Amino acid sequence: MLHVGVIGCGMIGRDHIRRMTDVITATQVVAVSDAFAENGKRVAAQYGCAFYEQGEDLIADPNVEAVVICTADDTHARFVLACIAAGKPVFCEKPLGVSAEECLSIVEAEMAAGKRLVQVGFMRRYDRGYRQLREIIRSGEIGAPLIVHACHRNLTHNDWHTSDMTIKNSGIHEIDVLRWLLGEDYATGQVLTVKQNSSATEGLLDPQIMLLETKSGARIDVEVNMSSGYGYDIQCEVVGEKGAIRLPDPATILKRTNCARSYEIYDDWSKRFIEAYDTEFSEWAQSLKQGGPVGPSAWDGYAACLAADTLIRARNERAILPIELPEIPAFYRSAGR
Amino acid sequence: MLHVGVIGCGMIGRDHIRRMTDVITATQVVAVSDAFAENGKRVAAQYGCAFYEQGEDLIADPNVEAVVICTADDTHARFVLACIAAGKPVFCEKPLGVSAEECLSIVEAEMAAGKRLVQVGFMRRYDRGYRQLREIIRSGEIGAPLIVHACHRNLTHNDWHTSDMTIKNSGIHEIDVLRWLLGEDYATGQVLTVKQNSSATEGLLDPQIMLLETKSGARIDVEVNMSSGYGYDIQCEVVGEKGAIRLPDPATILKRTNCARSYEIYDDWSKRFIEAYDTEFSEWAQSLKQGGPVGPSAWDGYAACLAADTLIRARNERAILPIELPEIPAFYRSAGR
Amino acid sequence: MLHVGVIGCGMIGRDHIRRMTDVITATQVVAVSDAFAENGKRVAAQYGCAFYEQGEDLIADPNVEAVVICTADDTHARFVLACIAAGKPVFCEKPLGVSAEECLSIVEAEMAAGKRLVQVGFMRRYDRGYRQLREIIRSGEIGAPLIVHACHRNLTHNDWHTSDMTIKNSGIHEIDVLRWLLGEDYATGQVLTVKQNSSATEGLLDPQIMLLETKSGARIDVEVNMSSGYGYDIQCEVVGEKGAIRLPDPATILKRTNCARSYEIYDDWSKRFIEAYDTEFSEWAQSLKQGGPVGPSAWDGYAACLAADTLIRARNERAILPIELPEIPAFYRSAGR
Amino acid sequence: MLHVGVIGCGMIGRDHIRRMTDVITATQVVAVSDAFAENGKRVAAQYGCAFYEQGEDLIADPNVEAVVICTADDTHARFVLACIAAGKPVFCEKPLGVSAEECLSIVEAEMAAGKRLVQVGFMRRYDRGYRQLREIIRSGEIGAPLIVHACHRNLTHNDWHTSDMTIKNSGIHEIDVLRWLLGEDYATGQVLTVKQNSSATEGLLDPQIMLLETKSGARIDVEVNMSSGYGYDIQCEVVGEKGAIRLPDPATILKRTNCARSYEIYDDWSKRFIEAYDTEFSEWAQSLKQGGPVGPSAWDGYAACLAADTLIRARNERAILPIELPEIPAFYRSAGR
Repeated sequence: MLHVGVIGCGMIGRDHIRRMTDVITATQVVAVSDAFAENGKRVAAQYGCAFYEQGEDLIADPNVEAVVICTADDTHARFVLACIAAGKPVFCEKPLGVSAEECLSIVEAEMAAGKRLVQVGFMRRYDRGYRQLREIIRSGEIGAPLIVHACHRNLTHNDWHTSDMTIKNSGIHEIDVLRWLLGEDYATGQVLTVKQNSSATEGLLDPQIMLLETKSGARIDVEVNMSSGYGYDIQCEVVGEKGAIRLPDPATILKRTNCARSYEIYDDWSKRFIEAYDTEFSEWAQSLKQGGPVGPSAWDGYAACLAADTLIRARNERAILPIELPEIPAFYRSAGR
Repeated sequence: MLHVGVIGCGMIGRDHIRRMTDVITATQVVAVSDAFAENGKRVAAQYGCAFYEQGEDLIADPNVEAVVICTADDTHARFVLACIAAGKPVFCEKPLGVSAEECLSIVEAEMAAGKRLVQVGFMRRYDRGYRQLREIIRSGEIGAPLIVHACHRNLTHNDWHTSDMTIKNSGIHEIDVLRWLLGEDYATGQVLTVKQNSSATEGLLDPQIMLLETKSGARIDVEVNMSSGYGYDIQCEVVGEKGAIRLPDPATILKRTNCARSYEIYDDWSKRFIEAYDTEFSEWAQSLKQGGPVGPSAWDGYAACLAADTLIRARNERAILPIELPEIPAFYRSAGR
Repeated sequence: MLHVGVIGCGMIGRDHIRRMTDVITATQVVAVSDAFAENGKRVAAQYGCAFYEQGEDLIADPNVEAVVICTADDTHARFVLACIAAGKPVFCEKPLGVSAEECLSIVEAEMAAGKRLVQVGFMRRYDRGYRQLREIIRSGEIGAPLIVHACHRNLTHNDWHTSDMTIKNSGIHEIDVLRWLLGEDYATGQVLTVKQNSSATEGLLDPQIMLLETKSGARIDVEVNMSSGYGYDIQCEVVGEKGAIRLPDPATILKRTNCARSYEIYDDWSKRFIEAYDTEFSEWAQSLKQGGPVGPSAWDGYAACLAADTLIRARNERAILPIELPEIPAFYRSAGR
Repeated sequence: MLHVGVIGCGMIGRDHIRRMTDVITATQVVAVSDAFAENGKRVAAQYGCAFYEQGEDLIADPNVEAVVICTADDTHARFVLACIAAGKPVFCEKPLGVSAEECLSIVEAEMAAGKRLVQVGFMRRYDRGYRQLREIIRSGEIGAPLIVHACHRNLTHNDWHTSDMTIKNSGIHEIDVLRWLLGEDYATGQVLTVKQNSSATEGLLDPQIMLLETKSGARIDVEVNMSSGYGYDIQCEVVGEKGAIRLPDPATILKRTNCARSYEIYDDWSKRFIEAYDTEFSEWAQSLKQGGPVGPSAWDGYAACLAADTLIRARNERAILPIELPEIPAFYRSAGR
């Protein structure tokens, strides 16, 4: 049983606490921390575990074997670095940091510590559909992948959503999962702005299209659409030399009513990816028993953040920019699954 | 150019006149007849062709090379027999007659005349989907067909629709097309009555399920549903020893709206089978040029009517009854495609 | 943590032990028993739990809070009765007994004991698709259900498969789940035998079609096909007064290769229903914490067995037979979800 | 009956002659011409019509009421101009000319002649699926269209296929039909080259991705893929403010065999678009009876050619280029459907 401490008891934090308590057999939440002490204490009481006002104190608790970070984005790096300093495995919700530089500092600290401790919450890699796509690509059945057409559509967006968040918080899932799917780094990036959806907030660039080119010359287009108006919909088609494969839609009832055959589309991500989250935490706990994390590494977190930063610049400058990721250090080469 | 006379200028008659004028290159309508003289004259004027009050006079017109019959069901046999007597090819809308006996009298007259002249309007055989099913069955790809699951669903029904019409006017399409699809005659029939749809007319048996067994022991179930409440929907799955094949739904736009993926279902048969009608008439005209009709024969009309009559009796007697079709005469053996 | 003893360490037994150890958080396997002592001891060693040669001794073990029975069908009733006698909750794989009489004896024993202890392993009720079908039916969206078209197709069958097993071991899943889906008992049953699949074992009636009529007059046809030749395929369409709904196929990758769009069909039940098994055990363990089992009851096991027995007789006598289930005792009325 | 002369009796020319003879009721082919006299004479003999060595002589034949041009691309403009000079309606297979300049000369000649005579063979506009897409867009159901994702995939390509032909002969269909679908002209164009398919001819840029931006800021990406390796596949998804709609795949049989559900994909364009061609010629003949062509105009031919030329330059210069189509002259404003 892995004894876990969770820093950040917001919506996603509480969901992970529930998951590690009720769904995953190999984990037990022994401590929580939250910036809002009242909220954190309530959660601690509910799950019968310790509470710490300061995340650093939770990390220092000798009962805490591993840490999960679900705090505000701009505190991720601080807590991850503290875990590395304490020599404790840490699962950090994406993004790893708010800038490529911040991510790189984590990479350097982890390498200096000499041991992989960090895993980043890119849960798409745990979705059954993406895994099947990857298996088929690896089998060679469709030849080399040449093009990926993807889209990430939300039903609607929050008032505080910004044009940069479209790329850095939503699009980053595709940035990571497609890099993993193709097994390749990116060479260049470009962003197409699109006529604005009239139901999007004034001034928000919505939708946007991210264009990525891999080192080998494969091309990726990703529509990132925060106000699809119809549902939460994730699509991905990989076109290879001998065939094309497509991510399945969730299995839902076929209804024949009102002169239509129809299938439900979910309205948000939680229904769509709930199983991927369960698998992610289950495999993470399993991997820690077996020597260390094998999921998305700090390097992956850095690579995704660097690509996102570059895309934002490319969009602002209306240019096609190189994505200048350094050669992967040997330390990280065997990482990732 | 085949010079055609059309008896019966109701909805379906007028549609066939339009078809033979505007759509089919090989036909020209030269005469029409209708029990309602005013209506018939209006149509004759519109298409610039002769009008006859009596169908028999139209048949006798030397300009009329072939006849199409679209009158009330109970007059079909009379006009078909008149065409046979006149030695003229005749296309008769289904049913060929109102009873198996009436159909048999046509069979006997045609055999006595010594030449195939009669074709029955079982247009399902001209639908691309059914033809593809038949080709695949014949190719042996799925092995011997063992079971057919079919359904015939109307959106809603007319006030004057009766429980017998469900079998004899609607179900008869499946009775014919499945016999043709499997290339086999029926051995027994049974009908299951079902809890009544509360939106169906009081007293109407709706839906009903026809069960047929072929001579070789294949089984067929056909839901015949006059008030599906959602659309006009024809389904057919053939289960063979090595696989199962299914009639395609019409190709319609995939819409993603309102948290659903949806495809239109048509509300009536005319949209669903318009192309089958076109092909039916085109091939009929073609066949007459080449020596005589090769589509559904008088024997097929008789076989379908006999099966329908037996099913109605089976339902009324709550019994499983034999369908006692005589051995097919050599005269008809080569017929049908 | 529920301490469970498992009697029967065959394939399905070992799978449930793995499930209750690795997948379900609320259960711990503390004892196992197996008729083959060597096999049972190996499993006990692997999971670090007690081993008993006799199932009765396992039931008597005070550490065992609840029992799971995965032995040969003809021993189910004996062990279930022993659990009732010991006052311990018992999960019994289907079938509850080898005859309706045997099931009834369990029902009577449980009622005499005065407390629901028995749950039967009808795991289809835990499949997400069937649950969605049931929700939609209950919502009234499609009006009253009138017809169910279902099929249960295996890729191929074992040498020792019999014509009765088709109904009693395979078809029984549909017998139970459709009764649950419609919330109604059966009034009559009939079985259609079909031209034999030439790849089925000589003498095996395969496929068969089960016809069921509910008390309210809804009709069900279930193709039970042990040698589909193409895969493990479970289909279910419910036709209501205002629409029809259909069980989803599993979500698999769309491949475009070799002039075809294609989706994988699984080759056996374990992939198809793995999640349903997980949910079944998770909810069972949960329910025991909360007062007692709420899943398929001994009465449900009895009802399914009675219907299956009647169907086999109906097939052998080529008759339509009444299914004479007594009125449900008040004891069971609130049971089932 | 429209008396038509056909210049060019190659594969597509002969297919149109067959179509205007056997399928379309309103047309009759009265004369043909072909650069290979022997071939042309054979076709003339087969259809019992006049033969001319010179296309210009065919155009001058007083029996010829309208002309269809199916010759080599670089002769199109010459014959179209001759028809305009003769005051005869002319249907010209795409492309209208080999350069935007050549197309513009036709536009100017037609305007000088003062009457619309020219129609260009962009048959996609006659495909039922594209028409349904357009209707839905026009209905406002999905709000303003923001993005189009399209792809044009051939199974394989000819030896003599060039990187420019990918855009100018294949991609031009999408260039025209998407401009028509959105009812808007293009503002900018860009082409992404992609890692080469190893089965494509050495040196061929294959696949390519055309990026177009409309005047209002909608974005289009079109994969143009000459060696998909799996079939002829045309896809089109229009993403609007409130929903997304998708071109249907052709209706083909669902097969369940070999652990897969599969649907046929055609191997070439002729099966995919045969009905669109029939509709195109039928409506063209109809329009001439009613005063003049209403299909794709010389202006549309010019607009498509200009966009294609610009895209080729953009690709070669790796730049995003403006597509500088002049304001549409009043003469053409009412044209197009």
